[in-house]
Amino acid sequence: MSKKYTEMTIKELQAERAKLAAEYVQIKSLGLDLDMSRGKPSNVQLDLTESLLRVLHDSASCKAEDGTDCRNYGQLFGLSEARELFSSLLDIPAKNIILGGNSSLNMMYDAVVRAMLFGVVGSPKPWGKLDKVKFLCPAPGYDRHFHICESLGIEMITVAMTPTGPDMDEVERLAASDESIKGIWCVPKYSNPQGITYSDETVRRFARLKCAAPDFRIFWDNAYAVHDIADEPDELLNIFELMHGTEYEDRLYYFFSTSKISFPGAGVALMAMSDANLEATKKIIEVQTIGPDKINQLRHVRYFTNAEGIHDHMKLHGRYLKPRFECVLDTLDTELAPAGIAEWTKPKGGYFISLDLADGTAKATYKLVTEAGVKITKAGATFPYGNDPRDRNLRLAPTYPPIEELKPAIHVVCTCAKLAYLNKILN
Amino acid sequence: MSKKYTEMTIKELQAERAKLAAEYVQIKSLGLDLDMSRGKPSNVQLDLTESLLRVLHDSASCKAEDGTDCRNYGQLFGLSEARELFSSLLDIPAKNIILGGNSSLNMMYDAVVRAMLFGVVGSPKPWGKLDKVKFLCPAPGYDRHFHICESLGIEMITVAMTPTGPDMDEVERLAASDESIKGIWCVPKYSNPQGITYSDETVRRFARLKCAAPDFRIFWDNAYAVHDIADEPDELLNIFELMHGTEYEDRLYYFFSTSKISFPGAGVALMAMSDANLEATKKIIEVQTIGPDKINQLRHVRYFTNAEGIHDHMKLHGRYLKPRFECVLDTLDTELAPAGIAEWTKPKGGYFISLDLADGTAKATYKLVTEAGVKITKAGATFPYGNDPRDRNLRLAPTYPPIEELKPAIHVVCTCAKLAYLNKILN
Repeated sequence: MSKKYTEMTIKELQAERAKLAAEYVQIKSLGLDLDMSRGKPSNVQLDLTESLLRVLHDSASCKAEDGTDCRNYGQLFGLSEARELFSSLLDIPAKNIILGGNSSLNMMYDAVVRAMLFGVVGSPKPWGKLDKVKFLCPAPGYDRHFHICESLGIEMITVAMTPTGPDMDEVERLAASDESIKGIWCVPKYSNPQGITYSDETVRRFARLKCAAPDFRIFWDNAYAVHDIADEPDELLNIFELMHGTEYEDRLYYFFSTSKISFPGAGVALMAMSDANLEATKKIIEVQTIGPDKINQLRHVRYFTNAEGIHDHMKLHGRYLKPRFECVLDTLDTELAPAGIAEWTKPKGGYFISLDLADGTAKATYKLVTEAGVKITKAGATFPYGNDPRDRNLRLAPTYPPIEELKPAIHVVCTCAKLAYLNKILN
Repeated sequence: MSKKYTEMTIKELQAERAKLAAEYVQIKSLGLDLDMSRGKPSNVQLDLTESLLRVLHDSASCKAEDGTDCRNYGQLFGLSEARELFSSLLDIPAKNIILGGNSSLNMMYDAVVRAMLFGVVGSPKPWGKLDKVKFLCPAPGYDRHFHICESLGIEMITVAMTPTGPDMDEVERLAASDESIKGIWCVPKYSNPQGITYSDETVRRFARLKCAAPDFRIFWDNAYAVHDIADEPDELLNIFELMHGTEYEDRLYYFFSTSKISFPGAGVALMAMSDANLEATKKIIEVQTIGPDKINQLRHVRYFTNAEGIHDHMKLHGRYLKPRFECVLDTLDTELAPAGIAEWTKPKGGYFISLDLADGTAKATYKLVTEAGVKITKAGATFPYGNDPRDRNLRLAPTYPPIEELKPAIHVVCTCAKLAYLNKILN
């Protein structure tokens, strides 16, 4: 089958569908139970930091460089030497970093909640007291970002993604024209799900964005900052540096975590922000908690030692993930490309591959895939309100399953995508 | 000096003041630097759980009983076997327990925030949409509870503490009469700062409280549930059991943590609530986080094994704390009792001793004590808005300093309390 579907006659298409339908029946009979749904590191990746579990082994080892006993209360913004570690990794001043618990999602959620209840630096009033609060949502994007907006009643405005990041003409136009638009979600490096890294120009335009709202916030979720896979990985401009000291510096909320560096369930999360933002945030956080888990922070410092230690470690992750991504991409090339009905990204890092099918076939494909025993992220999940307007995007997460499960899983996806397409045009 | 101050002549009082003033000058010349301000366990107590740091030492040991890999994402409400452990410790069904991170304060704060933004089960509307929200605050009480209300704009109504708990006539009268009263803060066992344990009758009256608000919540912060010091410790009725299955069950938010069992900065916190509360809470929390740190939860399960393990461990804490509490109480008996100007509690557990001085002398005493180089909790802190209406209460925290520092520290408090009293009545 080397002909594109668009070049086939009805007869040929019908024959192709019959073949694929038979193949699908056969696949279903295998009773597969495969999971390609979430961006979870595999056990093998987690084993890479096994000795992180052992670096703090007795009372004495819990004493930090500055004499802090990490076991006891104190240090609201987290352990100083851990803030230093992430400062050198991300090139952000340590004093602008607030460490949290195990979840950067939690820190993002809490940041939006604080804005709703108290407003942010520059807010005329708390966001929750306004008739309407809107966020720009580059899409396809990260479903959990969208869920935060949905849960808190923030209206989402979809902005298209381009190969260089969000459509910045649209971002600039919208941000400048509507003061109820208070923020934007960004995954600037190896974006979820497309694996796109924002171009230098995109980052520069973000750093100087003109906004109608005096209290607009860029939620810069740099989740995959050091998560390279390709030998020549993408480079992302340092937006914190670009904005620091400018009139725009309060506009940036920066997030990061080690969830996909050490342990997803027991890593260290952080946010970074300007001095003024930090001061305002401190007044609220100090009521919420006495401080994060410093023992776990110290574990990370002792294990990785410095930024280079983290980079070296991430090379091991990259080496492990590379064949997984290649397996998916190769299968898509072999099985789906000839049909000429789909496009996908070839990310140099991150956790996902984004698959754009023919319009109006993502949900049908998802249904077929799921019924064949392969879990993938729900169709629509990558768009605000779970609503993909062209019903074409699927997110593939190749990191968790062993490669011998990945191959059949992606084969099922290809088969179902083609079958769904044929079902659609032949009906 | 065996005469009470109230029985002295002016001349005798003047002589006494001169003597104490000289003593105070001498104390100041020592340049003390002692801290009796916060309820922190001492290093010796933390050393008791040293091997908790070692129980999870490799990848295989991170696998839970049910097969969960604690390193990875998952289990929104925390690790099942950790929920089971606390279930058997507190006699609360495991299914009603939500585990969090390292801070029960954080869980309480978030619970109030959720009520502000979304309301709770039974709320006609979110608390934040009401003109007025009020909380009952038994006082003296825990300053951080009061800070949550203050920060979120919740009006605090002080209710007096009695030897059997809050003045329940007053609690019942207020709760029944004003629907803007939405909650009450309780530390039911070894209350902070008085060390009072609520009587059976008090707990029963709470369990059947009539409230004008359909969405009233009892914030039951059972922080010292197993923190006994005396050989015959206090017993607290199980309010969860009393309310479970009754028409009142949604009214209870129960909190607990291991902050003063294992490590204050790296323990495990929990909340417990009715099925309906849990269901409503889940819908919000699942947007906020993917789940708490299960590795640390598994550490606690492996280390303590079962409820008995925790009880045995707490006996070691009690044995360590006993001489510290006795040191403070003996010094108060010897140095302050004869003057007849103060009263204090003799708790059988918990972390504090509450000292009631003569009216109008707490702030002055605090100032003298602080200027002599001894840190104690700020006068007024134990009351809403930091305002002790009779200006008489001080909170003493005898757990952190070594006993050889505790003795001089409490001697300074006694000297200053007497001096402040004499300064007041002789002016």
